[in-house]
Amino acid sequence: MGKNLTKRGEDYSKWYNELVVKADLAENSGVRGCMVIKPYGFAIWEKMQAGLDKMFKETGHQNAYFPIFIPKSYLSKEASHVEGFAKECAVVTHYRLKNAEDGSGIVVDETAKLEEELIVRPTSETIIWDTFRKWIQSYRDLPLKINQWANVVRWEMRTRLFLRTAEFLWQEGHTAHATKEEAIEEAETILRIYAEFAEAHMAVPVIKGTKTSSERFAGALETYCIEALMQDGKALQAGTSHFLGQNFARAFDVQFDTREGDRDYVWATSWGVSTRLMGALIMTHSDDNGLVLPPRLAPIEVVIVPIYRGEEQLEAISEKVRPVMDALRSKGISVKYDDRDTHKPGFKFNEYELKGVPVRLAIGPRDMENGTFEVARRDTLEKELVPAAGIEDHIAGLLEEIQENIYRKAADFRDSHITEVDTYEDFKRVLETKGGFLSAHWDGTDETEERIKEETKATIRCIPLNPVEDPGKCILTGKPSPYRVLFAKAY
Amino acid sequence: MGKNLTKRGEDYSKWYNELVVKADLAENSGVRGCMVIKPYGFAIWEKMQAGLDKMFKETGHQNAYFPIFIPKSYLSKEASHVEGFAKECAVVTHYRLKNAEDGSGIVVDETAKLEEELIVRPTSETIIWDTFRKWIQSYRDLPLKINQWANVVRWEMRTRLFLRTAEFLWQEGHTAHATKEEAIEEAETILRIYAEFAEAHMAVPVIKGTKTSSERFAGALETYCIEALMQDGKALQAGTSHFLGQNFARAFDVQFDTREGDRDYVWATSWGVSTRLMGALIMTHSDDNGLVLPPRLAPIEVVIVPIYRGEEQLEAISEKVRPVMDALRSKGISVKYDDRDTHKPGFKFNEYELKGVPVRLAIGPRDMENGTFEVARRDTLEKELVPAAGIEDHIAGLLEEIQENIYRKAADFRDSHITEVDTYEDFKRVLETKGGFLSAHWDGTDETEERIKEETKATIRCIPLNPVEDPGKCILTGKPSPYRVLFAKAY
Repeated sequence: MGKNLTKRGEDYSKWYNELVVKADLAENSGVRGCMVIKPYGFAIWEKMQAGLDKMFKETGHQNAYFPIFIPKSYLSKEASHVEGFAKECAVVTHYRLKNAEDGSGIVVDETAKLEEELIVRPTSETIIWDTFRKWIQSYRDLPLKINQWANVVRWEMRTRLFLRTAEFLWQEGHTAHATKEEAIEEAETILRIYAEFAEAHMAVPVIKGTKTSSERFAGALETYCIEALMQDGKALQAGTSHFLGQNFARAFDVQFDTREGDRDYVWATSWGVSTRLMGALIMTHSDDNGLVLPPRLAPIEVVIVPIYRGEEQLEAISEKVRPVMDALRSKGISVKYDDRDTHKPGFKFNEYELKGVPVRLAIGPRDMENGTFEVARRDTLEKELVPAAGIEDHIAGLLEEIQENIYRKAADFRDSHITEVDTYEDFKRVLETKGGFLSAHWDGTDETEERIKEETKATIRCIPLNPVEDPGKCILTGKPSPYRVLFAKAY
Repeated sequence: MGKNLTKRGEDYSKWYNELVVKADLAENSGVRGCMVIKPYGFAIWEKMQAGLDKMFKETGHQNAYFPIFIPKSYLSKEASHVEGFAKECAVVTHYRLKNAEDGSGIVVDETAKLEEELIVRPTSETIIWDTFRKWIQSYRDLPLKINQWANVVRWEMRTRLFLRTAEFLWQEGHTAHATKEEAIEEAETILRIYAEFAEAHMAVPVIKGTKTSSERFAGALETYCIEALMQDGKALQAGTSHFLGQNFARAFDVQFDTREGDRDYVWATSWGVSTRLMGALIMTHSDDNGLVLPPRLAPIEVVIVPIYRGEEQLEAISEKVRPVMDALRSKGISVKYDDRDTHKPGFKFNEYELKGVPVRLAIGPRDMENGTFEVARRDTLEKELVPAAGIEDHIAGLLEEIQENIYRKAADFRDSHITEVDTYEDFKRVLETKGGFLSAHWDGTDETEERIKEETKATIRCIPLNPVEDPGKCILTGKPSPYRVLFAKAY
């Protein structure tokens, strides 16, 4: 198709890297590990934000904003938390630059050294719980359900656009509750919201589960997660929701007067999804021709390309196109008319395929005679001729069909890539040949999990929520196991 | 009123600081100079963002996202730019923490020192123009009109909530153009958008003008600004739009093939408004009873407070309230029903006055009999009885009236605080007694401007756009001056 895009079958990883750049989603910046999110990519992220934000607000959450800097002493207050994040922190040590005395340029002014170093937030539990102490006195102040949209920094050594970057954008929810039960319910509610968003908006099927203790968030008692499967058979963690118990309340001394007249520490959750979702979206649906976007998140749902010679023909076509655009827009469908005279139709077709625009309409002289448009859908690449009259209804239906179709396709792929295995031999063989999720027995110990990871690179992606009682024997040690867990290689 | 709010007449500055905290807008955090924006304050900021974002998009701008870190060498590339920002930078020097060897806690890992320091962006011209070099080859790539919503950091020594904080939220627009004329037009278009937003959404009247050379943005050839007047007679710069010429294109070598087949450097603008607008909003309208919000930005436009004894009365009242809420919501009016049984009506009245809710409805047993609501407007504190039937139309009209009234009130105050003065004596006298803007002649030199500033603390807020030809003599030096400029003390 002339897009010079590596094929998935040749080199999936290279295909992804190229696609992100060529489809104008993001690119690497001059700052190690930090990306520039380009307008087309950012428009998709904005639609994700809008969808999630609405769901959070409908469930009683409020947005707020907390400082980007975290004093080093705050980070240190929760022991396992600092253990988890200290190794990948951007540390601010000074607050001024000056001209070098030898005239060699601008240097750090050593006299402007901070008394206490500030960490660029890798996540905001500590600064937020330091604030919650002031906001919470009594059960009347609870629950407190806060979300923030923010940038965070984790000094990752190996980075990939959207999937793992030193700076990324995310939302982080932080809630405080009077009881353990309510906090757990909140963490599970958010997990349901994440799963619903992934499936209904992104058309990405996910498995809901909990993490094993070794994969838990630093400071959590339970980490809930949604796991998606990419086309190369590797899993991708798409969102996490943590039940934090009273750990942060104890670390920051957040106590409240209970309804019964006692004092108790507050129960907490935190949860987040990030621009990593962009990676999941791209890798789940796209093909060798480029991006495939679900209509609900596509910045442009319909593009119209005129096929013409000369000004006069273009004007005649444009006259047919205008009412169609109006009709589509009145249905809330975003539409772009690409009448640039600097590029040929074939070039434009390629470009919108690469960018994943769900529906393309083309109209040329023959269509003008017949009163039709050529309608091409991006997901199947099928084309059909559709009468201009009432075409907006046809397209509205088609967009829904595409949304459902790409979900179904991804779900079928995922379902056909969950393999039950009962021996370590089979485990390794399936992992190396078919990939995907391996549903297997595990003895519940960190040691076994670690050894399997070392030997096969597969990790336990999750213990499915409400696992089916199905006693068996651990694939590695043969020890008893109450139910199967899902292993996979992962991003 | 039991709010314990300092009166404006007693101590305007203290009144402001107290109001920001008591009205739940923002508070200081544990990080020096950084604020926490609380949910109620953030909800106002979100409405500002939504309003501005729509205006930017309608004028062809696209959102994107650039890294928070700027390599020190980038900042140094444009000489006057680094001069302007180097003295107030947060500098990242390391990327890891570790356990201290003596067990005393967490310390910076000196082996993880960055080769080149990273600056937390004080503004993003440098990183963006480094990127634009890759995006712009030809006149076909122009204009490029990008905006980003982001956090920035400037290490201010004296900080005040919203008005001047080390970290603040803003939008920063960055555009690239093929011609000087087009870039200037863009800078002026944005100025108009800012002024329209301030006046129509925030109900804050502003004066449009340009800055003198000493007050220009570091790296700009022209800085356009909107200036507002606060109730204490001090001016507040509410937004700036910069014509950058080819300075950044030269510094980052961004050239393009012109339509005529030549090569030329690209012409640039940048522009921004920040959470400082919150300060302008608060100080323009609010009174000794608390916040006064324009309906267009109020998170809650209407609050309904039931006055009742016992469950039964409440249930009867709630039954009357529900259809009113539905009717208001169907008109797109945000409404809250505060039926908490933990607080008395008087307490609630105070609270919503403090928080600036534009319209309050109260309904008690007598209203139930008469089929009325008591309607109180926040701006004038007037109350009236209004029949329940069709009350939604009455309130929709009232909200518009409030929006207009607070704008008119602020505009009257502003207009009556622009004083023409022709001698330095009068200048100093009016400045110290009446305050406000002083319209005076100035000889156009930095030296005179600086001396007036030193002697009176007044600065030239702006040279009004398209100034009226009105030759006179500089109030300080007596030298000739072609038109008057506006001086004021400022935030």
